[in-house]
Amino acid sequence: MSAIITHDRKPHVVVLGGGFGGLYATRALARAPVTVTVVDSKNHHLFQPLLYQVATAALSPGDIAVPIRRILRSQKNATVMLAKALAIDTANKRVTLEVDGQLDYDFLVVATGATHSYFGHDAWHAFAPGLKSIEDALDIRKRVLIAYEHAEREPDPLVQKEWLTFVVVGGGPTGVELAGALAEISRHVLDEDFRRIDPTSARVVLVEAGRRVLPSFTPGSSARAKEQLEKLGAEVLLGARVTDIDARGVTLEGHRIEARTVLWAAGVAASPLARTLGVPLDRAGRVPVLPDLTVPGAPDVFVIGDLAALEQDKMPVPGVAPAAMQEGRHAARNIVRRARGEAALAFRYRDKGSLATIGRVSAVAEFGSIELSGLIAWLAWLFIHVLFLIGFRNRYLVLSEWAWGYVTYERGARLITGANGPPPPALP
Amino acid sequence: MSAIITHDRKPHVVVLGGGFGGLYATRALARAPVTVTVVDSKNHHLFQPLLYQVATAALSPGDIAVPIRRILRSQKNATVMLAKALAIDTANKRVTLEVDGQLDYDFLVVATGATHSYFGHDAWHAFAPGLKSIEDALDIRKRVLIAYEHAEREPDPLVQKEWLTFVVVGGGPTGVELAGALAEISRHVLDEDFRRIDPTSARVVLVEAGRRVLPSFTPGSSARAKEQLEKLGAEVLLGARVTDIDARGVTLEGHRIEARTVLWAAGVAASPLARTLGVPLDRAGRVPVLPDLTVPGAPDVFVIGDLAALEQDKMPVPGVAPAAMQEGRHAARNIVRRARGEAALAFRYRDKGSLATIGRVSAVAEFGSIELSGLIAWLAWLFIHVLFLIGFRNRYLVLSEWAWGYVTYERGARLITGANGPPPPALP
Repeated sequence: MSAIITHDRKPHVVVLGGGFGGLYATRALARAPVTVTVVDSKNHHLFQPLLYQVATAALSPGDIAVPIRRILRSQKNATVMLAKALAIDTANKRVTLEVDGQLDYDFLVVATGATHSYFGHDAWHAFAPGLKSIEDALDIRKRVLIAYEHAEREPDPLVQKEWLTFVVVGGGPTGVELAGALAEISRHVLDEDFRRIDPTSARVVLVEAGRRVLPSFTPGSSARAKEQLEKLGAEVLLGARVTDIDARGVTLEGHRIEARTVLWAAGVAASPLARTLGVPLDRAGRVPVLPDLTVPGAPDVFVIGDLAALEQDKMPVPGVAPAAMQEGRHAARNIVRRARGEAALAFRYRDKGSLATIGRVSAVAEFGSIELSGLIAWLAWLFIHVLFLIGFRNRYLVLSEWAWGYVTYERGARLITGANGPPPPALP
Repeated sequence: MSAIITHDRKPHVVVLGGGFGGLYATRALARAPVTVTVVDSKNHHLFQPLLYQVATAALSPGDIAVPIRRILRSQKNATVMLAKALAIDTANKRVTLEVDGQLDYDFLVVATGATHSYFGHDAWHAFAPGLKSIEDALDIRKRVLIAYEHAEREPDPLVQKEWLTFVVVGGGPTGVELAGALAEISRHVLDEDFRRIDPTSARVVLVEAGRRVLPSFTPGSSARAKEQLEKLGAEVLLGARVTDIDARGVTLEGHRIEARTVLWAAGVAASPLARTLGVPLDRAGRVPVLPDLTVPGAPDVFVIGDLAALEQDKMPVPGVAPAAMQEGRHAARNIVRRARGEAALAFRYRDKGSLATIGRVSAVAEFGSIELSGLIAWLAWLFIHVLFLIGFRNRYLVLSEWAWGYVTYERGARLITGANGPPPPALP
């Protein structure tokens, strides 16, 4: 069908993606004289900053994801469609959906984000999953938990050691958080659960090609993050470039780590939908937008969040949640102005600071010229993450889970689920 | 390998299955002079009485499942193996595992339970999933939530009505609980989330071949359960035998219900492992055991829980959690006696009562000659289920979830997850 949703005369805004950018744009249009259709291929908004906690069995998927319909329940000018957008036709102002035909728009907000990139080595995907969705997180959780199960029944001590070696590739915030959580699990969560192996002997290695972890932070924060990781029992390898990944481990330049579990936190690539816009993209596949967040030549199409490439004061606006939220709100403001016949305004990103957590009561934080680490940074991290978690129910449950986990070192969500049930046969 | 676990002279007890029966048998052996190996193809013990709450998005999988290792962490004579048992060789006292070779036993406890049965109509499985595992529950949750999504975008009102019709086949406790929860979701949870459909118009039909729901309860309880279901908005069809199920609905004798979502709660069949024991099985594939719970001709092999067929006072011992727990403890006691050279004792089931919940503050309960219904039965249900939920953390979280859900009518776990992401294309 060519229009499954009928509209009155109000401008129709189509928002592609229910992440931070899309959701903040939609909410900012709540009182505007427009109708909004939010299209997402998932039924839930995901609080991505806590996704690594699902991957490491501290939280359940339901704790960090909320149905998009639930969030927009009382916003009567917004309709939610569970559908996948395949292509954008800016000339005819129309989006092609996978199953449901086409959707005409007056204004379009493209906020479909990014996925992980293996820099051309797509074969690595099978051996080193990345972390972008609930499904990814459950896959990683399963791999980590099953590795200990394999180690427990492995008679060959060398192979056993490979099962007890975990490599995280990429020293950005996700890599640091994953490595810290993996070290904690081995030292404090699984320590008494096995009979033949000693989980505290597990080796967790964070591999980073650059000269420090958390490259977007100051060198001081990077050094403190490395120290805190090492205190938790993780190894940090800097200046280590990955040249190959296979089922048995990671090859670095002149170095090999035998490991049966490798996680990928090294690169992201923009959503492929950007390619259908018909404008030149940057190296990471993102859309270089104009200062008002529109696409060159398509003034009714706004691109926001991780999908947008934008410079400010000669620095790229970072691909973080606060930037996506600010851009979402700004796109909404510009749509309202344009609908009134006014000119769109340029966007200005306000950096509110950066935070990365490393483990139980360790984190680093930077707010302007203030640098924090350890317990204070961790409390700031806790406060801000709970504050921004959408839906009061989730805040309440996540705090419950954390309080419990904090006191007991227990990880409640240690479930191995999935169609294949029993673990795969051992490798030759 | 033929023995991956080496043992000292103590008798080796192998327990197949980490459900109620297997777990209670293992725990009862904690101080016995034996070594125990628990084998399960899942890493978690599942609190099956609450599984329907995961299927209907009220609880997360992590709330009702606990890693078996975690439960047995401090029981030093017990080892847990994540493995699938394929066959039992009672002559050589040996279990064949799928990947890990063989496991020799001195005593064997078989507690692998039951799965759903389609009475020879295995093709129905694709259209009407049953509810036995976390994966089943997530599949059902996805089908139910996606049905509303389909209805929301369906232009044809007749097809829309099919998407808004939910049929539950089987009027036992699981069917009653599912039908009650589905009616509640439509009336109280999703009621404001859609723009084009009215979820409160959804039709929920419970189909039962017999003359009353909850046939194991008294006729009075059955009548009260039916009333309470109807009050919640569900329809109850009695004496309705299913003759066919396809992608578009259910055919009854002389009657057809067009429905895109059909759930199966009608029959169970014993785990196929029973067939390898080499003894005659009953019609449902269960093992008729001797009064001491052993297999005829194999006095070292105990069969307990849903897999065992046992009569007492000319009534079958029911396939419920309390029976499995009592049998597990009794099998452990007999193993200890046998290891000491004493004779095994006959098992005696003590009926502690029956409970079935129907919805928010409605339930039926029977304790001996006392019959309860409504709020009091529901409070009894709540108390007993939380009491028996293994792991204090889960009790605390499940109570948190329930308290929240009770006050707000909110279902937190309304996530559609799974590899296929977007919904399947509409049927022709």
